[in-house]
Amino acid sequence: MKVSKADIKLFRALSQKKVRQTERKFILEGWRALKEVLNSASKVEAVAVLSRYLEDPDYKAILSKLAERGASIKELSETELNQIADTVHAQGVLAVVHQKSYTLDSVRFGPAPMVVAVDAVSDPGNLGSIVRSSDWFDVDAILLGRGCVDLYNDKVVRSTVGSIFHVPIVEGVDLPQTLSMMKEQGFFVVAFSGDGKQAYTTLQPRGRSIFVFGSEAHGVSREVRSVANVVVRIPKYGKADSLNVGVACGIVLAHTRAGKENTKGV
Amino acid sequence: MKVSKADIKLFRALSQKKVRQTERKFILEGWRALKEVLNSASKVEAVAVLSRYLEDPDYKAILSKLAERGASIKELSETELNQIADTVHAQGVLAVVHQKSYTLDSVRFGPAPMVVAVDAVSDPGNLGSIVRSSDWFDVDAILLGRGCVDLYNDKVVRSTVGSIFHVPIVEGVDLPQTLSMMKEQGFFVVAFSGDGKQAYTTLQPRGRSIFVFGSEAHGVSREVRSVANVVVRIPKYGKADSLNVGVACGIVLAHTRAGKENTKGV
Repeated sequence: MKVSKADIKLFRALSQKKVRQTERKFILEGWRALKEVLNSASKVEAVAVLSRYLEDPDYKAILSKLAERGASIKELSETELNQIADTVHAQGVLAVVHQKSYTLDSVRFGPAPMVVAVDAVSDPGNLGSIVRSSDWFDVDAILLGRGCVDLYNDKVVRSTVGSIFHVPIVEGVDLPQTLSMMKEQGFFVVAFSGDGKQAYTTLQPRGRSIFVFGSEAHGVSREVRSVANVVVRIPKYGKADSLNVGVACGIVLAHTRAGKENTKGV
Repeated sequence: MKVSKADIKLFRALSQKKVRQTERKFILEGWRALKEVLNSASKVEAVAVLSRYLEDPDYKAILSKLAERGASIKELSETELNQIADTVHAQGVLAVVHQKSYTLDSVRFGPAPMVVAVDAVSDPGNLGSIVRSSDWFDVDAILLGRGCVDLYNDKVVRSTVGSIFHVPIVEGVDLPQTLSMMKEQGFFVVAFSGDGKQAYTTLQPRGRSIFVFGSEAHGVSREVRSVANVVVRIPKYGKADSLNVGVACGIVLAHTRAGKENTKGV
């Protein structure tokens, strides 16, 4: 089926946060991301693809699987693709995918749950990187506080490299209130800050942990700090003013997991 | 002094890699970056600043110090600034700074040197993050292989958050040849790859180490792998396909430094 004007209008409109929030849908670009969505429970509504990919058996197989799961496949021209997407990232294909809405109650925690909480991180690449690392190190859930960049922003989705489909992510969380509640349920809340009194390497392994990372400009907010059991720093050896928040998250998760490698993994 | 048309032309031209390479200069944006350059030996040729900042004593003090070091200070209007810069990042000020050209011979290695080598990393944010983390963990030098994004690209400079002035960075390195030579001089060469046979946590501390990180799409090249003493992975626990290369670099450097905190640092 050829793409319609209404389709193009929807694809374009979904670049706006407002429309994404009303429709509860978002745009996914590229073949790699489409393969990931097939391994998830997410619903794909429509796929727009350059006609030439329909002749390739490998790409056709992916499209058939998506069609079986209810996606309508729409052909478009290069010109039409340019109207709706960044062609470098789209690689000739993009899709409209339904947002999955997690609440804290819907998350199934493992026996020693590890949670990442994100307090007002505004850079899309940083949030994407946090989601990707959280997936790699098998975090049970991610809580996005108010003031974070929209999870379904195209740059965030792109920089999660498919991990957006692998980890339960709860959006729009009132962090001071939710962290207080989880603390009462036995979670140990660790906030990271350059002025933390103890080094992250001194943290003892615990059953239920929440690691909180703050905004690039202001760090973890005062309200969240006051809820934390401990404020911890990553020791500095050189002259840099600070570490990138995505890198800080990766360092902490790697350290926490070190020595407990999943032998089923790579 | 008011900014001239020729000044504006130079500022604009320096957004091009070719011009940066011919002139051996680059653009620095924002007050925070300008403060960092004052703590370095880098030469600032010119500063373009919105007139209103000249009335503020704090900003004026920074500009005076830059003028003492030979920078010519030029006033410009909002309209002129919009012509040459991303106003969000520039915060009303930008500067033309001379590139520092390091060769491997000019690097002074400490007693147990740690070197980061970067093989064809193409994303500006990733290279910037590698430079920032290398600074934070006090790496002795960074070697940029051919095929890396230009170090003086505006996004790279921005995402180093001043660290570009703190770490010796050698550009345009023939990595297979240079790493072979350094190996002969006693450096232990560790390449990182998802299919590495041993986990990074099994690495023993060594006197002279080089950690090599590869491109986002293809990892460390075959030529570089063949030079490495060992190919190492960061163990995976979840479903992500890969880790961000900037995050991987941070994890490895943090692990290597853990337990040896510089008490003079924060």
